[in-house]
Parts: sequence; structure tokens; C-alpha cells
Amino acid sequence: MHRECEEKILAKIRPESEEKDQIFKIADDLVSAVDKSGIAKGMVAGSVARDTWVSGDRDLDIFMLFSPSLPREELEEKGLFLAREIALSFNGKIVEKYAEHPYINANIRGYDVDLVPCYAVSDASKIQSAVDRTPFHTRYMKEKIVSLSDDVLLLKQFSKSCGVYGSDQMTGGFAGYLCEILIAYYGGFFECINAASKWHPGIVIDIEKHQAKEFDDPLVVIDPVDPKRNVAASLSATRMYEFSEYARGYLKNPSCEFFRAKKREIFLRSEFSEKINERETIFYGISFDTPGVIPDVIVPQLKKSASSVTALLERNNFAINRSGYFMGNKKSLLLFELLYDTLPVIERRQGPPVWEEENSEKFISKHLGQTFSGPYIREGKYYVEIKRRHSTAESLFNSDDFKQSGLGKHVKKSILDEYQILKNSDCWTEEFSEFLYEFITKISPLSEILLDADKKR
Amino acid sequence: MHRECEEKILAKIRPESEEKDQIFKIADDLVSAVDKSGIAKGMVAGSVARDTWVSGDRDLDIFMLFSPSLPREELEEKGLFLAREIALSFNGKIVEKYAEHPYINANIRGYDVDLVPCYAVSDASKIQSAVDRTPFHTRYMKEKIVSLSDDVLLLKQFSKSCGVYGSDQMTGGFAGYLCEILIAYYGGFFECINAASKWHPGIVIDIEKHQAKEFDDPLVVIDPVDPKRNVAASLSATRMYEFSEYARGYLKNPSCEFFRAKKREIFLRSEFSEKINERETIFYGISFDTPGVIPDVIVPQLKKSASSVTALLERNNFAINRSGYFMGNKKSLLLFELLYDTLPVIERRQGPPVWEEENSEKFISKHLGQTFSGPYIREGKYYVEIKRRHSTAESLFNSDDFKQSGLGKHVKKSILDEYQILKNSDCWTEEFSEFLYEFITKISPLSEILLDADKKR
Repeated sequence: MHRECEEKILAKIRPESEEKDQIFKIADDLVSAVDKSGIAKGMVAGSVARDTWVSGDRDLDIFMLFSPSLPREELEEKGLFLAREIALSFNGKIVEKYAEHPYINANIRGYDVDLVPCYAVSDASKIQSAVDRTPFHTRYMKEKIVSLSDDVLLLKQFSKSCGVYGSDQMTGGFAGYLCEILIAYYGGFFECINAASKWHPGIVIDIEKHQAKEFDDPLVVIDPVDPKRNVAASLSATRMYEFSEYARGYLKNPSCEFFRAKKREIFLRSEFSEKINERETIFYGISFDTPGVIPDVIVPQLKKSASSVTALLERNNFAINRSGYFMGNKKSLLLFELLYDTLPVIERRQGPPVWEEENSEKFISKHLGQTFSGPYIREGKYYVEIKRRHSTAESLFNSDDFKQSGLGKHVKKSILDEYQILKNSDCWTEEFSEFLYEFITKISPLSEILLDADKKR
Repeated sequence: MHRECEEKILAKIRPESEEKDQIFKIADDLVSAVDKSGIAKGMVAGSVARDTWVSGDRDLDIFMLFSPSLPREELEEKGLFLAREIALSFNGKIVEKYAEHPYINANIRGYDVDLVPCYAVSDASKIQSAVDRTPFHTRYMKEKIVSLSDDVLLLKQFSKSCGVYGSDQMTGGFAGYLCEILIAYYGGFFECINAASKWHPGIVIDIEKHQAKEFDDPLVVIDPVDPKRNVAASLSATRMYEFSEYARGYLKNPSCEFFRAKKREIFLRSEFSEKINERETIFYGISFDTPGVIPDVIVPQLKKSASSVTALLERNNFAINRSGYFMGNKKSLLLFELLYDTLPVIERRQGPPVWEEENSEKFISKHLGQTFSGPYIREGKYYVEIKRRHSTAESLFNSDDFKQSGLGKHVKKSILDEYQILKNSDCWTEEFSEFLYEFITKISPLSEILLDADKKR
């Protein structure tokens, strides 16, 4: 039954020969251009090299392998120069980008091409930077996956539809290479889905049986070309188990819905306002200019900031339902859904234990006569009930306590420049609307499909 | 300097010879009456036997020692019969009371006399019930304390003034026997105060160096006649450290104030209401008939109930500043000071981990389409945001959740009969007023003295 649906999907996502010919042609041309330079050897990497790209994807990775004897600085200089020259000779629109070292991204004949300089090391254990590992991945996978490319395509499409495809920090999901390893390990799409539906903490996948390091990530997938690396390190527990439940749902009811791309919802300010009224909670947003650094640096900072501010709110007795964060092109948002935003004037504070004589004396003389209650003793420690520091969430968000609350480096800098405290429907902007929709209607991928099916009935 | 003040106090609290003669006379008469029965031997116990009662105390303990060969049932029967006969022959007003077994309490010539049957065992290790231990305490202490009775008097008065005298459950303080051991161990009142001012967790006092059991009570004082018993077992950490800070305060400034009985404050409903308004918190009281069982059974139940209901409130997202409990003659009270008493309609609930397949399916199908958000996955577990069970504290207090929340046995029975939910100033009754005053103006004994001194200046 599931084969039927999978064949239908494959017919849509498997690139036709025309698409293949086109992409191989431009790939060949670029590799030749690198070879012709005489200073580096060209190599196609990524899904194009393994014949595992989903029809319509227009990403192309060209690696330029330099001699390992070249000093790092020269590699960067010569590599960038060559990449730029080649891109220009193909009339590409050029952007310089940075991972561990700089590379060139160019739009060439409608393809999104990365031209990445790296070292042609003889052995994966001798790599000097993460990109040097990629040619080994390509060589390893090319062989392993040759008869399983349809299965990889299905898994990629399935993961995309589930919302868990992509190893960037915002997604925290499955990289293309990870999908390929899973298919190689389990032996096919259906076998992989079957296994994933039973995933639980402690799963280790070690295709080469050469693990040389312990990891406490939710899923451990040892890199076949590097025994000390977990390919699934950036996979979050949330995404891992969203995938697992989605797999379980598909096994129960193998419908094409599980491969369908999600439609983006338009979410109006008035709808957001209505939802807030229904929930009776109070939303606070902290909005500020998105720092001009790559997303994989900013997103972890946003995550850290949201969790620091949540802790700060809780320390100040404001109870939170949920928090979230979003990085837009222009503005970023930290979002907090509170159960209430006003508190009584009194606040209980803990003092030293009675047996610390000096601290106790200081504490008593600081507070004596200045309290609502206390200093009093409970279980050997002093307490006082004094005027609360922040009686409203607004006061807290306006305070130095907020600004010094462990925001990430770039996030803090941008917030110190300027930030807006937004309340309830004022949190809505067009840029934030999709994020707000997902925050409010938060639902697991399988539940969403089941709910849609219910509605159609 | 401190001797001066102590002499002044002793002059007030040391019984004069007239008071002594009177009490010894009646004690002798009662002992003779026991002896004359021919079936038991009489013995004076308690502070009268050790000459350590504070002038004006009118408590008298007469023990009736029966042969250990007597079966328990017969001891109870004959003991009660003899005690009642003696009390009647002294024209006493009789009340039958229960500790581990029954005894007679009688008002005889203005004295509060306990007539307690027990076994005259040959060795403290052979006691059959706790009261059998008392004659050993009396014999042991009589010798130890003979030259230190003034010191014991000072310590008792000091503890009373500090509010920590009495080993009943409501006080959780220092028993008279414990005061005597402390004086015997440290060698005097001043030495005891000096040591107590430095108390910290882990203090063990073992006058006979024969400890045969480990305790994790705040203070461990091994009974000189029973190596497996902690005499300070009923002393709470709060009382222990209130005493310790009070001792420290006295050493710094040895004033007679430290021996002065606290004056009881009148606290009007209007004053209570004003305090609540100042604090901006919300008070809820649960009032019900005090169960007709001895305080040492009820008080721990009230304590347990207050802490169970606090946990229930917190599980339901109501934040508490403080809770308390009070046992009056007619009514008892559980008191909760809340930071707010109304919550939004939504509530987040945790579900099973995704890898528990059956539970996950049940959870999804139970909640699908019935939520504000979810079912969604976070870190491998399901969550839903659904209609809150109790949006107001009032709803919670009216619910079965409250009635089934781990109230003590007798407390629960009385509450199931009938209870009132009182809010803010309605918590006030004359019976509760003193407790409410202490709850609101909660302050450590030393802080209170320092504050009074400040005011007088």
C-alpha cells in the first residue's frame, strides 16, 4: 500500500533527464574551470554528486581542492581569488560568505552555487577544517547510495513535509548527509521509517562500527569517515521525536499527505488578537534590529536570550506559559506568554543561615524596621518580606536586570542600541506573523495531519 | 554585667520558701497516698522533683510505679482506678487523659496534678512505654542538677520569653528536661547561651557519651538514660535557630528584656484589613471545627494539610507567599497568602514521551482538536494547552481536588463535615486574631527586641 503512494511521490520529486543533464553540464563546466587553473582540483559535492537532489532544488556545491602544503592564509587568499574569477567568468552574481573560512556563493544560470576552497588531504583524520571532510563524505556516499537514491529522495521529501529537514540552527533538523546515512544504514526508506517510529533515547547508529567518542546528543550517528564525530549533533530532541511520531503515523496510514509541503498560513493581526483573548494570557515581545551576523551565530543567541529572560521572569515571580524567538531579515523577536503581568507589592527574600553570624547581623540591620514582615527565621534561614523590585512585567523589561540578563553577545549589543517592548497584539508585524501563527497554533506534525484528515471528513 | 540582670530575674522567678513548702506538702501527701495503697509506689517527677520550677507554675507530676510483672491491661485498669481514688480523696476535679496509655489529670488545691501509672522497671533499657522512662530522668537529673537549679530557671524563663519553651507540637520548642540537660552539659546558663549562640547544623550533645543511634534532627541531644533516644527530636530547626539568634543578641546586650514575657497584642479586623491592603496579596482561610482529639495529634495534621494544599495550589499555578495553620478551641484555620487568585483559561499539561507508543496514541486521540495548542512535542515529550481545571482559587477550594489533597485524617473528616472558604478580612475572627497578628507581623524574637529598643529611643 505504501509503495503506491511512494511511487506517486517519486514521479514528482525525481529529477527528469533534462533537469539532470542541465545540472550535470554546469557542474562539469565549473569543475573543468577549477582544474584548468592548475592550482586546484575541482570536485562536485553535495546531493548533485550523489544523485540525491529533489527535483527543483537548484543548489550546487563545487569544491576546489588545494595542496595541504599550502599555508592556511594562502589557501584563503588563492581560493577566494580563484572562486571569484570562475564565478565572474560564468557571469555569476557574487556574495562572499563565511563558514570556518570564507567561500564564494554565486548565482550562475539560475543555480545557487557554492565555490568552496579546501585542502585535498590524503586521509579524513588529517583534515584541517570541517570543509576538508566534505570530499570524503562525497566519495563514501557515492558508492554506498548508488542503488538507493530513490529512497533518499523519499526521506528528504518526507522530512521536509514533517518540517524537520535542514541542519541549520533554526530548524535543528536532519541534514541531507544524515538522511543518506540513515538510508544506507537501514537499507531503504520504508526500513528507515519503520526503525525511526521506534526511536527512543540512547539510539546509536555506527555504520562503520568505529565509534571513538561518547556523545550525549538525542541521536548519535557516527560519521563513517570520522569516528569522533556525531553527524546528528545539531538534531534537537524535539525534531528527532517529531520525525519519529510522523514515521509512526505514516506506518499506520501511508497516505501521500505525509509528503505534501505545508502551506504557509496568512495570519492577520486581528486573528492574533482574537487568539490572545481566547487564551486570556498576556503576550510580551521584545523586538530589535536583527544583528548583521550569520543566522547560525544569531539563532543560538536568541535561544539563550529567551531562556535567560524566562528565568529572570520566573525569579521575579512572573509565571510563563511558553517563550519563543524569531530571527527576521529586519527585526528579531523574543516572545513571552505570561499568565499575569502584575504582582503584589510584597516580595519574600531569603537571607543567610542564622549560624553565619556576620551575614546575619548585616541582614538584620539592613532590613530591621523596613519590611512588611520579618526578618524572621524559617528552618534555620532568615527571610524578609519587602517591597517588590518589579511589580509589573513592563517594569522588568525596562530595567537593567533585563539588559544584563544573559542575552547573547550580538543580541545584547542590538538590544542596548534600541528595543521595543510590545504587548499583546502589538507584537504582530507582517515579518513576525508566520512565527506568531506557529507559536499560537503549535502542533506536532502528525497531529496536524490527523486534524486535517478529521476536518475533511 | 549579665549577672546583674540575671540576679534581678532570679529574684522574680525563684520560688520562695512558702511556695516551696506548699507544693512539697501536697506532693508528699500524694506520694504517701500511693504508697499506702500497697499496690504501687509513689514518686514525684518533673520540675518539682528537681527544684527547677519557675515561681507560679502549678504543675505537679506524681508517678505511680507498679510491678513490671503486672499485665499491661491490669496496669491500666488498676492504675486508673487508684489514681481516680486518690484524686477523689483529695477532692480533685478529675479528667481522664491519654498519652501512650491513660492517666488522670486532677485539679487539687489549685495545682494541676497528673497521676501517671507506670512500670517500676529495674533498668531504663527495659521500659515498656515512654512514661516508664520518666522515673529514670528524675533520678538522673536530681543528682546532676542539684547545684544548677538557678541556671535551669534562667534558661526556662529565657526560652519562654523567646517563645521557644515547650515540646508540644504547636511550639516545637525546648522541653523542661531538655533545658536541664543543656544546663548540665554546658555547666551553667551563661555557658549554655554562649554555646547556643554558635549552634549550626550537626551539633550532637551526648552527656553520657553513649550514643547508639544516628539522627538527622536539627539538634541531637542523646538521652542520658537511653542511648537510642534524641531528647530534642521534637525541636524544630526554626525554634532551635530562633533560640540561637536570641542567645547571640543577649550576649551582645545582656538586658532584662530578654527575660520579659511577650505581651499579647489585640489585633482588630480593621487592622488586619489594612495590612492586607498594604501587602496587596490575597488571603484565603479554610475554617472548620477543631477535631476533638488531643493537640499533639491535630497539630501535625494541620501542618501536613497546609503543606499539601500549598503544593496543590502550586500545581495549579497559584503562587503562594506563605501558608500557616492554627488550632483554636472551637475552630481551626488553614491560611494561604496568594500573589493572585485568578488565572487565564489555558493550562499547559505534560503528556507521555513520544517513544511510549500506546500512551502517545491515547494522549493524541484524547486531546486532538480539543486544545488551545497542541498536542505538540518538546524535547521528546508531548504537551497540550487546554482549558484550565481551576481558573480561580475559589474554584480550587470548592473542588474535590482540595478535599482529596492529603489533609490529615481528623482534619479531613472535619472538613468533609463542613468548612468555610474565607477571603481576605473575612479570615478574621476573635479566636484567630492573635494568630493572624503573628502571621502578618512575623518577626524573629531578636528582631522584635531590637525593633522595640529602636522605638523606645
